Amino acid sequence: MTASPDTRQAGEGLPEVHVVGTGLIGTSIGLALRAVDVDVSLADQSETTVALARDLGAGRITGEVDPGVVVIAAPPDISPRLVLEALERWPGAVVTDVTSVKQVIHADLVRAGRALDRYVGSHPMAGRERSGAISGRGDLFEGRAWVLCPHEGSDPAAVDLVERMARATGAATSRLSPADHDAAVAAVSHVPQVAASLVAARLEHLSEQALGLSGPGVRDVTRIAASDPGLWTQILAGNAVAVGAVLTEISEELTGIVEALTELGREESVADAPGARAVLARAIAHGNAGHARIPGKHGAATTAYEVVSVVVDDRPGEVGRLLTEIGEIGVNMEDLRLDHGLGLPFGLAEVAVLPSAAGPLSEELRARGWRIQD
Amino acid sequence: MTASPDTRQAGEGLPEVHVVGTGLIGTSIGLALRAVDVDVSLADQSETTVALARDLGAGRITGEVDPGVVVIAAPPDISPRLVLEALERWPGAVVTDVTSVKQVIHADLVRAGRALDRYVGSHPMAGRERSGAISGRGDLFEGRAWVLCPHEGSDPAAVDLVERMARATGAATSRLSPADHDAAVAAVSHVPQVAASLVAARLEHLSEQALGLSGPGVRDVTRIAASDPGLWTQILAGNAVAVGAVLTEISEELTGIVEALTELGREESVADAPGARAVLARAIAHGNAGHARIPGKHGAATTAYEVVSVVVDDRPGEVGRLLTEIGEIGVNMEDLRLDHGLGLPFGLAEVAVLPSAAGPLSEELRARGWRIQD
Repeated sequence: MTASPDTRQAGEGLPEVHVVGTGLIGTSIGLALRAVDVDVSLADQSETTVALARDLGAGRITGEVDPGVVVIAAPPDISPRLVLEALERWPGAVVTDVTSVKQVIHADLVRAGRALDRYVGSHPMAGRERSGAISGRGDLFEGRAWVLCPHEGSDPAAVDLVERMARATGAATSRLSPADHDAAVAAVSHVPQVAASLVAARLEHLSEQALGLSGPGVRDVTRIAASDPGLWTQILAGNAVAVGAVLTEISEELTGIVEALTELGREESVADAPGARAVLARAIAHGNAGHARIPGKHGAATTAYEVVSVVVDDRPGEVGRLLTEIGEIGVNMEDLRLDHGLGLPFGLAEVAVLPSAAGPLSEELRARGWRIQD
Repeated sequence: MTASPDTRQAGEGLPEVHVVGTGLIGTSIGLALRAVDVDVSLADQSETTVALARDLGAGRITGEVDPGVVVIAAPPDISPRLVLEALERWPGAVVTDVTSVKQVIHADLVRAGRALDRYVGSHPMAGRERSGAISGRGDLFEGRAWVLCPHEGSDPAAVDLVERMARATGAATSRLSPADHDAAVAAVSHVPQVAASLVAARLEHLSEQALGLSGPGVRDVTRIAASDPGLWTQILAGNAVAVGAVLTEISEELTGIVEALTELGREESVADAPGARAVLARAIAHGNAGHARIPGKHGAATTAYEVVSVVVDDRPGEVGRLLTEIGEIGVNMEDLRLDHGLGLPFGLAEVAVLPSAAGPLSEELRARGWRIQD
């Protein structure tokens, strides 16, 4: 039922890990590594915080510290200094930091003029809405991406060691250069956030009636627009160059679309202005091509699935009963979305399955008394 | 289990409805109205098509036609002509069209210089990926919005009659002027589509590794980017002025954001350029305010829900078993999202519930052996 511990790479053979900074991420790393019997020592500028992390089981704070890996889990502005201190203090240790932007950190370290062969930046892509040691969880990284960002001077053995440690927390690791990492998160995380916010902002002064026409599309596009402005200002500012580059591309294409719409708005007949229409068609087609490249169940593969829409009552257990019956029928559900009507006592469960399963599933569900809509 | 017929406003007292154009929408209207015993007559320029719609049960094509309501279910370019013909041919009938843009149609009708008191534009917000009579469904409109767009000269009794007909199909009706309708769908449907396409287009040339970092955020924002370019070119061109106005606002705000990022990218220290940071913070905060206004389970109320994240195996029936147990516990699930890991044999089910239910639900699920992540 739940993931068994053996899906997590064992911690065997890992040296002592010293975690500097016992906030949410540092404490969670300690908890995850302790769960696979790695020796973890903890440090934080606050004695209260580190004591709490220890009491939660994230590692020890007494005794000798002789780490093979040092994890700097601190805010971006102080991380470079802490990385340099760790490299100097433990000449045998590999050092990583876990901030969400990598080029700025690496540039700061290079400016210091020290040897950086034992430094490997990294970025565990996990977080919670709450912060602090008390919110730490040993399973925070399970199934999440943890990107390793070796620079040109990183010792391959150092990269391997940080990767083994990351895997021991249950994370799925990958490797990107600091520049590629920052460009990637700009495109797959930071720019979507800006776009969602820009679209959502347009809804602020709409009438209630107009908002009542909101369907699944606008809800999907704007879901992440609820994000925290303070946090996102830090993230966008820390990745200003890469985010700016992608947004500039969008701005240019958008200008072309607005020009095309202006031309079309002037026309008398819908058949006029074929050039303007081509601009619109290209924009949507270009989006098709990009969308098709998103990996996994919600992206590329989604287009290969077929959706069976089932009407369900809006009361406890109904969706569960539906999915249990789908399980009994023996069909694997690839994705599920719930779409509630406008004040109606029922909603739609949109069940994505492999195309070959869609027909038989619909028939079988109908036979069991469910109402299939699509 | 399924919605009972009495959630649909009865068809009693409705006069004969004459449907002109038996494609997907026209045929579905016929099927929906026949299901509540409304007399429906059908017409189409294609004899084959209208015969198919009749054979499917959407209405009759023989006998006398004396409608109280005429529904023009044709493409935008020929709809104005068909509306005018219907007004002339049946002097006692109310006439509506069902195209997705309303100002263009109304402007065309006004240019013809006839009395339009018996005309009420409308827009059923339902569709399918497939088209044609063969794809028609009697439950296509159930729970979907159907917007009535009376113009200043519409007879109130005519508006009421079209509204009763729309409700008889199971739709949830609302009223907006043609201009307000077009502005509303620009903001809640057409602009989100353009934004999704623009963000998705940036992914086209990203490396596999970079795309591997795609999380739920970018998947949500770009989900509708898979839409059909031909269809969307027609929709955007038909609502060019309203879409252009909203996109111009976005373009202006985006220019400010790019300028702020350019300034931040030039700075040495992350503490510099407070004015540029304020631009970013305002953009995100503005998005918060707009997002909070989206009604219903996926919008405004979502912020009031708490999410319980449960680790589930990726095999048939597991999610169903989870949801059945949630039903047994007696908690109503407000929303559900499935998030699959990167090649891992399990995923996360994110169950949104009322805040008061989150603690007890987590405890009870843990007691039943489920692993709770958040």
